[in-house]
Amino acid sequence: MNTFGNIFRLTSFGESHGAAIGGVIDGCPSGLFIDEDFIQSEMNRRRPGQSHLATPRKETDKVEFLSGVYEGKTTGTPLGFVVRNENQHSNDYDNLREVYRPSHADYTYQMRYGIRDPRGGGRSSARETLTRCVAGAIAKLVLRQKGIVITAYTSQAGNIRLEGSYKDYDLSLTETNAVRCPDPTKAAEMEALIMRVKGEGDTVGGAITCVIQGVPSGIGEPVFGKLHAALGSAMLSINAAKGFDYGDGFDAPLYKGSEHNDEFFNDGGRISTRTNYSGGIQGGITNGQDIYFRVAFKAVATLLREQNTVDSSGNETVLKACGRHDACVLPRAVPVVEAMAAITILDFMLMKS
Amino acid sequence: MNTFGNIFRLTSFGESHGAAIGGVIDGCPSGLFIDEDFIQSEMNRRRPGQSHLATPRKETDKVEFLSGVYEGKTTGTPLGFVVRNENQHSNDYDNLREVYRPSHADYTYQMRYGIRDPRGGGRSSARETLTRCVAGAIAKLVLRQKGIVITAYTSQAGNIRLEGSYKDYDLSLTETNAVRCPDPTKAAEMEALIMRVKGEGDTVGGAITCVIQGVPSGIGEPVFGKLHAALGSAMLSINAAKGFDYGDGFDAPLYKGSEHNDEFFNDGGRISTRTNYSGGIQGGITNGQDIYFRVAFKAVATLLREQNTVDSSGNETVLKACGRHDACVLPRAVPVVEAMAAITILDFMLMKS
Amino acid sequence: MNTFGNIFRLTSFGESHGAAIGGVIDGCPSGLFIDEDFIQSEMNRRRPGQSHLATPRKETDKVEFLSGVYEGKTTGTPLGFVVRNENQHSNDYDNLREVYRPSHADYTYQMRYGIRDPRGGGRSSARETLTRCVAGAIAKLVLRQKGIVITAYTSQAGNIRLEGSYKDYDLSLTETNAVRCPDPTKAAEMEALIMRVKGEGDTVGGAITCVIQGVPSGIGEPVFGKLHAALGSAMLSINAAKGFDYGDGFDAPLYKGSEHNDEFFNDGGRISTRTNYSGGIQGGITNGQDIYFRVAFKAVATLLREQNTVDSSGNETVLKACGRHDACVLPRAVPVVEAMAAITILDFMLMKS
Amino acid sequence: MNTFGNIFRLTSFGESHGAAIGGVIDGCPSGLFIDEDFIQSEMNRRRPGQSHLATPRKETDKVEFLSGVYEGKTTGTPLGFVVRNENQHSNDYDNLREVYRPSHADYTYQMRYGIRDPRGGGRSSARETLTRCVAGAIAKLVLRQKGIVITAYTSQAGNIRLEGSYKDYDLSLTETNAVRCPDPTKAAEMEALIMRVKGEGDTVGGAITCVIQGVPSGIGEPVFGKLHAALGSAMLSINAAKGFDYGDGFDAPLYKGSEHNDEFFNDGGRISTRTNYSGGIQGGITNGQDIYFRVAFKAVATLLREQNTVDSSGNETVLKACGRHDACVLPRAVPVVEAMAAITILDFMLMKS
Repeated sequence: MNTFGNIFRLTSFGESHGAAIGGVIDGCPSGLFIDEDFIQSEMNRRRPGQSHLATPRKETDKVEFLSGVYEGKTTGTPLGFVVRNENQHSNDYDNLREVYRPSHADYTYQMRYGIRDPRGGGRSSARETLTRCVAGAIAKLVLRQKGIVITAYTSQAGNIRLEGSYKDYDLSLTETNAVRCPDPTKAAEMEALIMRVKGEGDTVGGAITCVIQGVPSGIGEPVFGKLHAALGSAMLSINAAKGFDYGDGFDAPLYKGSEHNDEFFNDGGRISTRTNYSGGIQGGITNGQDIYFRVAFKAVATLLREQNTVDSSGNETVLKACGRHDACVLPRAVPVVEAMAAITILDFMLMKS
Repeated sequence: MNTFGNIFRLTSFGESHGAAIGGVIDGCPSGLFIDEDFIQSEMNRRRPGQSHLATPRKETDKVEFLSGVYEGKTTGTPLGFVVRNENQHSNDYDNLREVYRPSHADYTYQMRYGIRDPRGGGRSSARETLTRCVAGAIAKLVLRQKGIVITAYTSQAGNIRLEGSYKDYDLSLTETNAVRCPDPTKAAEMEALIMRVKGEGDTVGGAITCVIQGVPSGIGEPVFGKLHAALGSAMLSINAAKGFDYGDGFDAPLYKGSEHNDEFFNDGGRISTRTNYSGGIQGGITNGQDIYFRVAFKAVATLLREQNTVDSSGNETVLKACGRHDACVLPRAVPVVEAMAAITILDFMLMKS
Repeated sequence: MNTFGNIFRLTSFGESHGAAIGGVIDGCPSGLFIDEDFIQSEMNRRRPGQSHLATPRKETDKVEFLSGVYEGKTTGTPLGFVVRNENQHSNDYDNLREVYRPSHADYTYQMRYGIRDPRGGGRSSARETLTRCVAGAIAKLVLRQKGIVITAYTSQAGNIRLEGSYKDYDLSLTETNAVRCPDPTKAAEMEALIMRVKGEGDTVGGAITCVIQGVPSGIGEPVFGKLHAALGSAMLSINAAKGFDYGDGFDAPLYKGSEHNDEFFNDGGRISTRTNYSGGIQGGITNGQDIYFRVAFKAVATLLREQNTVDSSGNETVLKACGRHDACVLPRAVPVVEAMAAITILDFMLMKS
Repeated sequence: MNTFGNIFRLTSFGESHGAAIGGVIDGCPSGLFIDEDFIQSEMNRRRPGQSHLATPRKETDKVEFLSGVYEGKTTGTPLGFVVRNENQHSNDYDNLREVYRPSHADYTYQMRYGIRDPRGGGRSSARETLTRCVAGAIAKLVLRQKGIVITAYTSQAGNIRLEGSYKDYDLSLTETNAVRCPDPTKAAEMEALIMRVKGEGDTVGGAITCVIQGVPSGIGEPVFGKLHAALGSAMLSINAAKGFDYGDGFDAPLYKGSEHNDEFFNDGGRISTRTNYSGGIQGGITNGQDIYFRVAFKAVATLLREQNTVDSSGNETVLKACGRHDACVLPRAVPVVEAMAAITILDFMLMKS
């Protein structure tokens, strides 16, 4: 299952150290101007090596569209695209052929398929997420025309967290620092934490908050296709994601119904709610309020230090320290969260129309 | 989208106060003995009126299978089933025809479809979940043959929570109290809390933890069909669910990679892990360890007290207190969580085979 | 796979001699008035015992809707429905438990599932098609509002066939005779043939032609989801169907490109074609001309005479003559062809909007 | 809908004169040795310019696999592949920008999407079918291991047809002549016909017969997913296909039930049938006999002579003669029919396992 979406659908392919990563985007509305600069800029936000926090792997990550566009506009036929991998030092990974790295997918892929590509994690590498950034950028181009804006930011790194609501921050500050946190003070603390942990050869996790503004009411499906269930599935498909909640989420149990219910009122002719604990979704369908949710991420499993593990024959062994890697995935996961949110929202809007 | 699953699929129908609730289960393995007593007992766990904590709505909730079974065994053809609604006092709901109840799906269904069935929330009622208990019971019958056991319990009600891991409790105690909590002391506290809140005409939320034991390694799909993404989608499709996490979930950010990674070791010939922060799933595929996850639920939106709201014309109005309702959904949501887990796990096992 | 359609979806269940046949219709537009008389009349067209040509099995075949309708109108939620089987003389079929009837699905179901319901063919009985008549009737109600009319008729029985195009006949005559053929002379010949063959304890096949008028241009999907591929799949899913062609179909090879191409012209401001060998579909998408196609049916496999066969142990045996059965499925298949056409066209129209 | 299949799935992209044609194959069994020579040879069978009958368009049509293969074997992850288009003389097609070619998909794509790529028919070009040959070749590699052999051949061109069954011919002769017909005499007649028609600037259609041998019994799905319905949908998705029938198909009406039923007998311990009018499929599921079916194709719509038509403004105009084109698609469609058959059969075999 390498396809996501119902009407607007991304099918992705590619391994970390194969020839290329790529995909097919089906169901894109026709007549859309493909702004390649914007798409590239969205991919660049995910690219390694963009700051001192990220792995220095050097990839230009240029996307090439192979179909579905004529004279700059989408034609309604599928958009095929590829991003060539430049970094294919397969021999770097020879030592991983028979070793199962802890908390990676080496062992589980072997159990699932009886074979695996050990180079950089193969298909399980987060490098696959650049296909989502491509599809997400296109979805954003469509949503922008409808006045819908999606913004994600790092709201927690290790034990440092933003306590307030997204409304308490100036989200335009998110891209001004390497951790992508809209609170400059907390951003500096997070950055220091990440650098310190990295210095120890270790890694750290965190959480990302995402806000979607401008979605009209009535978008979603009841029962199994609830919008928040689709958003949850989308987010939990991102590498290292461990949890998802929306609205007041895991804090909801702390409120009584009378405190938590979002009272409706007449806001100058428009039906609105006084509070938004629901996170913009009631019964799986939007109510016109802001949608917001959180995604928890574990620390990166690849360490710059040795770890105990076993090989495929069951022999206990020591995994060498990795030479270089991100100490925290959060900054580079922010654009991926936005991309998956954009794909999901567009897909649901097309399902309703 | 009223269908869940890929190979083992449940399609559900029915409104709270329509003629019946029912569904079609497609893709069930053939030759399975349909233990109707077990299925009924699973449905009874979800039934209203089973304890002083639950709404006294009296429904016998007898399931009738209409197809797919011959001489007591499944034939591989779809199982159609219906559960008649006995409680169809439609006139009870006349006052809700034009009023949008806060944090219910009245407003959003109206925006989605331009029409809605106001009787007891219509399709958005949690009564729909009994179709899941039917399909879940059948999935459990198949999984039991493979040695797979699924157990859910109330791990939080309001601010009372079980701090330990599921391993710290005797889960066989879960069904010994009305809140379905395996810690008798905490269970009593939770029960007292619920009764107190109910006395205030109010409601309270909480969380359910679920453990799945006996799933072999290699079950799951990479990328978009990750097992935990499917479990997340399944759980977030349950009424009032607000969040999902698996393994150490939202606590994961508090651990460094070196603390959090699950070291592999040779456990007497079997590859195992010393810890299980991964919750039994790595890269979307099972590693043979226990699967465990949590689901957060908000307080029930229906209150036994008045609330401010608006009607469909936008006039501000006061919603009357509901005469009777559960003050906490958790106890009755426990079997639904188990059912959705069973359906998801079976579906993924059939996808691999 | 007991589900048909993408947006407008029918999931069907039920065996010939089980408790009931039924289904779930998902994705029906909301606000549609459910004309139960019309739906019943469509079902009656398929019902056995309606003429001397059909099996005298007496079923009232009353459909009961269980959900999805409120105050007579669809709400956008799934429509569950059941039709009770009154004719459950299971003991009639005891002799079929271990015998494989020639050209029936007894043997193949056994090979597929390792078990089968031998009562009247179980799930493989054409009785299942009444669920399609229910869903088709609802699709017709939607299509009628858009000015789309679907008409099928018997165009061949045995070696008696209508040589002309559908344009050569007054299709309103179709329902005036028992074979559902718009040419009264040919209808009489067909009827005589069927009665003669029946007198021999034998059966006869034929073909049905279907015309769909009023579909706007631009409906369909390219490549794998071509409209005619979907229509073909729909028709070939009907019991005893052996072939499908559209436009000039299997006669197309007899024409050169210059003879066969449908020349465009300006028909008073509207782009039209002078001929319609394409059958209203070019490249999988409608061009605004009439859609027409043919479905071939084999003779009914159930005979009123003895046949040689084997039992499940491989012993050669003689199958007894069946006491009563249709000698020709065509008349009762006509409404099923229309129903599947209606479901398919509506589904594709909803995919475009 | 540019995806075909349920478990073994091909998603295709690409326009005739875009940068590349390609696709993603998902669900391929892991551990399969990818025989690139065989795959290339299957593509070469479809390539233009291979004989005097085909368009001289010169394309090397080399496939490049981008993922899913490690050290020569499939890993269970998706296989992305591209075939570069070398023949991108877009200016050749400037005269087609505003003109609707008769019986092509220009007009219908414009109505569907409001925009179209006019270069060589864009997405509607049969060039897309090379993606099917790639996926089909891989499916054949899997099926070969199970002893399943698929053979298609030209059984009709214009009014010249092979009257006998596939059993009457030595199918190994199929690839010995340019029309791919196993009867050398008829092949010569067909070839002469095609060359004569081509000399007139015209085109001719025909039919292809396909035989699938070695499929075990019990493969298929009842009701909507019948194997022959899926094969029909697969074949009707091929460009210029107008009809599909299996077993005795459109001849079935000429036989009575007693003549047409396939009597079972004990064939030395194996249950078999004395005749095979069913074409190896009963009730949508294989019975272990040979599967065979026919596909009708119309004459190519592109002519080497002028045609009347209209432009997008509705002005009547004359379409210039095309400079070069196949006079008959049949020879190059033969490998495409085989490919779609292989994909479908493999998909259904994986659904059962």
